[in-house]
Amino acid sequence: MDIANLTKQWAERMGPRSHVVVSSRVRQARNIERVLFPPHANKEDLRRVCELVNRLVHADATLHNFQRIDINTCTSLERAFLKESHIISPELEQAGEYRVLYLDQQRSCAIMVNEEDHLRMYCLQSGLQLTPVLKEINAIDALLSRSLKYAFSEKYGYLTSCPSNVGTGMRASVMLHLPGLAMTQQVEEIVKELPQRGLTVRGYYGENSEFLGDFYQFSNEVTLGKTEEQIIESLHKVVEQIIAKEEAAREALFEKKRPYVEDVIWRAYGLLVHARIMASSEAFKLLSPIRLGIERGYFPSFTHHDLNRLIVQVQPAHLQITEGETAGVEDRDIARARLLRAAFTGMDSHN
Amino acid sequence: MDIANLTKQWAERMGPRSHVVVSSRVRQARNIERVLFPPHANKEDLRRVCELVNRLVHADATLHNFQRIDINTCTSLERAFLKESHIISPELEQAGEYRVLYLDQQRSCAIMVNEEDHLRMYCLQSGLQLTPVLKEINAIDALLSRSLKYAFSEKYGYLTSCPSNVGTGMRASVMLHLPGLAMTQQVEEIVKELPQRGLTVRGYYGENSEFLGDFYQFSNEVTLGKTEEQIIESLHKVVEQIIAKEEAAREALFEKKRPYVEDVIWRAYGLLVHARIMASSEAFKLLSPIRLGIERGYFPSFTHHDLNRLIVQVQPAHLQITEGETAGVEDRDIARARLLRAAFTGMDSHN
Repeated sequence: MDIANLTKQWAERMGPRSHVVVSSRVRQARNIERVLFPPHANKEDLRRVCELVNRLVHADATLHNFQRIDINTCTSLERAFLKESHIISPELEQAGEYRVLYLDQQRSCAIMVNEEDHLRMYCLQSGLQLTPVLKEINAIDALLSRSLKYAFSEKYGYLTSCPSNVGTGMRASVMLHLPGLAMTQQVEEIVKELPQRGLTVRGYYGENSEFLGDFYQFSNEVTLGKTEEQIIESLHKVVEQIIAKEEAAREALFEKKRPYVEDVIWRAYGLLVHARIMASSEAFKLLSPIRLGIERGYFPSFTHHDLNRLIVQVQPAHLQITEGETAGVEDRDIARARLLRAAFTGMDSHN
Repeated sequence: MDIANLTKQWAERMGPRSHVVVSSRVRQARNIERVLFPPHANKEDLRRVCELVNRLVHADATLHNFQRIDINTCTSLERAFLKESHIISPELEQAGEYRVLYLDQQRSCAIMVNEEDHLRMYCLQSGLQLTPVLKEINAIDALLSRSLKYAFSEKYGYLTSCPSNVGTGMRASVMLHLPGLAMTQQVEEIVKELPQRGLTVRGYYGENSEFLGDFYQFSNEVTLGKTEEQIIESLHKVVEQIIAKEEAAREALFEKKRPYVEDVIWRAYGLLVHARIMASSEAFKLLSPIRLGIERGYFPSFTHHDLNRLIVQVQPAHLQITEGETAGVEDRDIARARLLRAAFTGMDSHN
């Protein structure tokens, strides 16, 4: 499989509210009745789930076009590449037998088989589009549920491996870019208020990942006792409030502390155009003010797509696939600096 | 007095060994017989010294052209400006009545009256030129000694306020730029060996000043029991050894760690071209790798003169004189970034 050409992504499109919202994602967790859930399943159980899903996908006119990737036949580098692209979860990256990914041609919807649950399916779109994304993933869920009998309880709803997903089995999340709130030290305050609204925050690569480049992933913590629509509505409302706060923070910064913000933006640009060695964590940190700069018209020839693409391209596995598997950390840091220099040099900028 | 036009300096010329040696300086400390030395002198003593020197300078065909600056009539900003330009010592910057400076038209020789000693005269030239500089200052000393009777002991030599200057009364110093030795952590080792050779090391602004931008000022500690020529010869020898080590360090860096050194050089350039706010300590730090880059041909349109000039121009008092006395720290940091951007933008560079 040529993993490296899996580049056409949600990131190429430009969704609503993209000045703050990078992407919206909804995923559903489902399990098949009378088959042990993955944490307790034996090989035969896992194989059976694969077979059931595979038969169904082949028979369905829509799902038929999904690309099948057997995770266990991927190298660890390819799996890392898929994780960096947000195509598979860190859980699926661990691999193991009978782990399969079905990916649609747009790279925006996917079904992961035998992750923590038998089925984890998601849809991802650019910008703030929770309701459309929910509809899309529910359409796929409906196709699957025609032939598969899900583990479901009248009292609790969908049953899942981890109690935290029981109920709707849904996790809706929104990736926000909050440089304004980060620069004005307001993120902590926002995060504090999340639990009482049934929400939580994670880093760029989900659970336990670092907060890099002022990117924050907000999602529902609660899956029980509410409908999918209620959860989405509540998340949407909070996101709109955060957007308003971020906009106000940016306005205040550019009005009252323009030299300071411009210093941050242009220093990042200066380093991206000139550095010869760059670690991925630094690249992430520097690309954040550039995204803010794009938004404010400092880089007219640069789009959010370009930036979304770069953020993924500078990740270690992506660079290793470009540079060759033998490339060590130092080679990658040099290649990363070269890639960024090429992307930013000669870029039209209102310097 | 228009202090700000005191810009034509030694720094405009290019002396030998300038890839490592910024400048060479020799100063002589002298006191007038039967007049209390400045630390114990009363106003009348100081006034008398001023008068004696002034009469002599006026009457002499050479010294006649020296510009007289009454330090006490200068504002503290003007005094800071003169210190930043290395025209007066930190001691003279403190001012007090009857402190006078005589400065030659090249701004390379000067006589300071009523500094720590009655007379402190120095000559400063670009590059490694200790012997010519010694000759120049000795010529001035000879002119003065024709009419002034110096405090002198057959046993000890010239008598000075501080015992550390007794004997020759001479301090010869060489400002070296050692980025190669600094990057390879060899400076400490060199410094350790200095005392046994009667030498010492100071920062960019002399005694107790910080080591900024990899600039190190090496000078003789011992003034007693050796002739001026012996001291100069010994300093010259050590400087040549340090130059050889610095050259070797640079060669090794560019041969074995080229991406690392180029990263340091180009990051500095990127920040100098793009930053919007910059403190003087950071500017100093960033200009150091640029000097190395000039030396290695990275910036063909930039000379050591340009860099010497910039190092002085970015100092606080220089910026305050350009920006107006009311400019606060923040205004200066913005003005400094603007000045550096203008100097480096559009500069021819082998990027």
